Amino acid sequence: MSHLRVAIGQLPVAVGDIQGNAERIGETMDWAEAHDVDVLVLPELALTGYPVADLVLHREFVAEAEDAADALARRAGATTTVLSTITRVPPRRSWDSVERHVAISAVVINRGERRGVYHKVLLPTYGAFDEGRTMAPGGEPGAIWRIGDIVAGIAICEDLWSGDGPPEAQARGGAQILLAPNASSYHRSKREGREQLASQVAWRNGIPLVYANFVGGQDDIVFDGSSLVVGADGELLYRAPAFIEHRAFVDVPLPPHRPVTGPLRTVHTVPVPDRSHAHMPPSAEPLDELVEVWQALQVGTRDFARRNGYEQAVLGLSGGIDAALTAMLAADVFGPGQVLGVAMPGPETQEQELADARAVAASLGIGFAVVPLDPLMASTEDALSAAMGEVERTTPDVLDSGPRAARLRAGILAAVSDAHGHLMLATANKTELSIGAATLRSDSVGGFAPLRDCPKTLLYRLGEHPAVGHGRIPDRVLSKRTTAQQRLGGELPPYAMLDTIVQRYVQYGDGVEDLVARGLDPDVVLDVLHRIDDAELARRQSPPGVTIGARAFGTDRRMPITNDWRTKRRRDSARLDADHPQPTLGPETAEEPDR
Amino acid sequence: MSHLRVAIGQLPVAVGDIQGNAERIGETMDWAEAHDVDVLVLPELALTGYPVADLVLHREFVAEAEDAADALARRAGATTTVLSTITRVPPRRSWDSVERHVAISAVVINRGERRGVYHKVLLPTYGAFDEGRTMAPGGEPGAIWRIGDIVAGIAICEDLWSGDGPPEAQARGGAQILLAPNASSYHRSKREGREQLASQVAWRNGIPLVYANFVGGQDDIVFDGSSLVVGADGELLYRAPAFIEHRAFVDVPLPPHRPVTGPLRTVHTVPVPDRSHAHMPPSAEPLDELVEVWQALQVGTRDFARRNGYEQAVLGLSGGIDAALTAMLAADVFGPGQVLGVAMPGPETQEQELADARAVAASLGIGFAVVPLDPLMASTEDALSAAMGEVERTTPDVLDSGPRAARLRAGILAAVSDAHGHLMLATANKTELSIGAATLRSDSVGGFAPLRDCPKTLLYRLGEHPAVGHGRIPDRVLSKRTTAQQRLGGELPPYAMLDTIVQRYVQYGDGVEDLVARGLDPDVVLDVLHRIDDAELARRQSPPGVTIGARAFGTDRRMPITNDWRTKRRRDSARLDADHPQPTLGPETAEEPDR
Repeated sequence: MSHLRVAIGQLPVAVGDIQGNAERIGETMDWAEAHDVDVLVLPELALTGYPVADLVLHREFVAEAEDAADALARRAGATTTVLSTITRVPPRRSWDSVERHVAISAVVINRGERRGVYHKVLLPTYGAFDEGRTMAPGGEPGAIWRIGDIVAGIAICEDLWSGDGPPEAQARGGAQILLAPNASSYHRSKREGREQLASQVAWRNGIPLVYANFVGGQDDIVFDGSSLVVGADGELLYRAPAFIEHRAFVDVPLPPHRPVTGPLRTVHTVPVPDRSHAHMPPSAEPLDELVEVWQALQVGTRDFARRNGYEQAVLGLSGGIDAALTAMLAADVFGPGQVLGVAMPGPETQEQELADARAVAASLGIGFAVVPLDPLMASTEDALSAAMGEVERTTPDVLDSGPRAARLRAGILAAVSDAHGHLMLATANKTELSIGAATLRSDSVGGFAPLRDCPKTLLYRLGEHPAVGHGRIPDRVLSKRTTAQQRLGGELPPYAMLDTIVQRYVQYGDGVEDLVARGLDPDVVLDVLHRIDDAELARRQSPPGVTIGARAFGTDRRMPITNDWRTKRRRDSARLDADHPQPTLGPETAEEPDR
Repeated sequence: MSHLRVAIGQLPVAVGDIQGNAERIGETMDWAEAHDVDVLVLPELALTGYPVADLVLHREFVAEAEDAADALARRAGATTTVLSTITRVPPRRSWDSVERHVAISAVVINRGERRGVYHKVLLPTYGAFDEGRTMAPGGEPGAIWRIGDIVAGIAICEDLWSGDGPPEAQARGGAQILLAPNASSYHRSKREGREQLASQVAWRNGIPLVYANFVGGQDDIVFDGSSLVVGADGELLYRAPAFIEHRAFVDVPLPPHRPVTGPLRTVHTVPVPDRSHAHMPPSAEPLDELVEVWQALQVGTRDFARRNGYEQAVLGLSGGIDAALTAMLAADVFGPGQVLGVAMPGPETQEQELADARAVAASLGIGFAVVPLDPLMASTEDALSAAMGEVERTTPDVLDSGPRAARLRAGILAAVSDAHGHLMLATANKTELSIGAATLRSDSVGGFAPLRDCPKTLLYRLGEHPAVGHGRIPDRVLSKRTTAQQRLGGELPPYAMLDTIVQRYVQYGDGVEDLVARGLDPDVVLDVLHRIDDAELARRQSPPGVTIGARAFGTDRRMPITNDWRTKRRRDSARLDADHPQPTLGPETAEEPDR
């Protein structure tokens, strides 16, 4: 059996940094060359970063990418590199009336030349992906490539997923191996799904698959790497580690030649050398599920901070689990000495909470300051009372202290951030962001909200996990769930039930009837769904964070702010009040895995 | 020549309010029936509102729309109604690997029945539009409909625009008239473009076109109505008024029968009556360009407020043009008695500014309050100094008063909003939002930012316009452009030049070289572009507003926050500093029309 020596460059994502990416790619090409690699596969849009969003509407950006690809082609030696980048293509119209001028492509470079280019055919336009918005689809799914004495296919990310797309056309047409640049973002259970898919594609077509992925954070999304090589029998040959930059080469056993019937381009005809010992590096073990989540949070936060120029972080330390985990994450990412936790006790803060905040800071070794809120509350109250008295009768709730205290807290953190260039971290979690509770407490103000996609129940699991929070988060913080529940507001269901409703509604599109059929109380369901819809404006203005699940708010779930479906919920709610006088609470159901 | 009596229901948009929309549609059907109308055409997604965004991923929502369409079908009499709504369709994959289950459709209803359904073929997935994200494309562009003794085609919005799409297939197949539900959002110059397109479609195919559009605001976008009927010769037969709900019927002259070769469905076979006098209501005159902008701002703000439950507004009154125009808009939308302007003079506020703010309030007749900032500044300074002293050496800029004053101002307005349920209006304009200046002054905090898509130079034009601001905005506010320029910061170019750079970069994708070729100074250009890219995070968190131009931030222009292309700009900037020691400032160029 002959082998093809294939290398994977699992590079860090850096959208827009064409020159920096080109330098890194060039070094990887040199490394591959030095290891006698036949083909180097890089992630999708390795040269520009992914996703490029509307950067491709800037002609200057596209031209710069084209120039950089040319320069890399000139640098190429005997190793063939599958270099994914944007390329300018003849205008093409497809699913609407507007011509697209740019494609997501893989430029095949060898010995100083561009030897051809493949254009991605299937353009994901769902979930977090918007490729159809700006990109022209490729029109030649079956293109195959002669590389020495073997025939390869190239498919880019979504191209793999249809079950009857480019891989199938290429294998039918004579490809013996599939080379696949990818930009596959992390969410929980994603790695398993991805490996299953890769295995199916390989087995279905009887050819091995080389799957190169990015690593690192880009705004709301994180790429986990975990690049793959799968054999023609669908078995995993190699798995790269998750969440770190990595390169590796693998001698991939090839199936016998097939009759070539597809459109064949020649990259070169120098035969691939016979290698006596096939090189096969050891695979990385998959991570524990919660360790994986924690690493995603770290990498996403680290790259947001680093790439936006932040070396320090500040956050409000309340003594609760959200703030404690955010502080621990910041300590991991920035180093404890670069993190400042600020406790801002207000009129309703209990002594114990302040003590808990102090304990968190001490346990993590981060900086700690206390800014009492009382003088600020008094002076704002005076100013507002006077002003309101000028224009209208002041109602008692004019000076509702809750939101005002929250805003003052946010203002204090922002002043610290201004002064020292700290990244201001918001501590909001997904549960509270869902129902609008994060706003009231101003937990959603800041430059980055790392935990915004983590349900509250998951935060407790992270806090208790031996390899994550155990021993670092004080026990008291983990044990006061009742207090957290009380602070949420008496009319709301327990967090576990709340998380179930949020997940079923947001992620699976369940309706009131579906949820009631699961044993949940109709009044509770309607109330929660109504809150979720109502919180859209506040949520839209909240900072980005790290996506760890399907249908993350904003990135993956895009809803109208002004949503008159709410009107219907109010009517339904009134109707239910009449029909079901005293329903019981439904069961607490556990969080479900992402599909 | 025979005529078809066609009615247009130019209905208000209300995304999600299926029941309310159905009631309104039912009334319009009754009205059409009473006027012996042959065919009633309603806007695109008249039943659900447009755009539905990810609401269609909720099965309950789709089912509710299907039920409501059935109920309307049962209500239908002799008038045929082209009712656009979402419908569940067999799963279809198209440009990626994910099946879509829902289409944008036009259900044709007559005499108690659904007589068939057309599915939109071209799904706009660019600019502000995301239909490809969730919708299945229709697969029968040439479908035509027998209505009595005539043959009609149906095309939905984007279907009209390709030049070789459904209208062409339908006309070729035998259609004598084209019925077109639309959701065509307003921006400047849009009406002219739309009328030109409608004329071309009609003339090219030799058949009349009936174009029904929505009216009203949905988050960032406004529909201007201006529905149309165009004759087979491309001449405008009827134009409905802009920005108001409206219904009208028109007896449209039909071209002779054509041979029917397309796929024909029969709605009914009762002949259309011969009418002795063709009914042709007078057309509305197009609005003056700036009056049109002002009406768009009014309608967009009104509908956001009304549909989200706000009856009052509060804003900060600085004495500048942005605040003055925001206040005038609020007075128009809410009534002067429902608007509160709050002046919050701080350490750097001059007496004259406070007097100007007072003059604006008096001129508009809105409520006015003064909240001096000094006591708040002093108490926050004390608190912060103490806190910062605890943890690290305090640098002089710790207590930089600018951003802190801005945040306190935002907090005061928010407290008023909390107390009385005012909608907090942010006064940011597009120019300052572009370069990040709005954040520093906290003009971008609030629930809605009506002027966020208006360049500064446009604001002056609106303020001076006889039918908009003249006589309402005090002359002093309009005359202090130099002050406004100074407040912007000395290193920035004049507003007129700034607006040119912003427009060319954001809207037309111009690069540094393009801008320099227009005579603009390279250093200035690089500095401004860098600021635009850098302000993305702040912009992402700013409130929605009214889109009046192409490529509005957020809705229509979607950029990465973490954008390493900035790195390149910094390098270019350094290079230019060396190359061009003392370049002169480029010319001030006027704002260009949208294309």
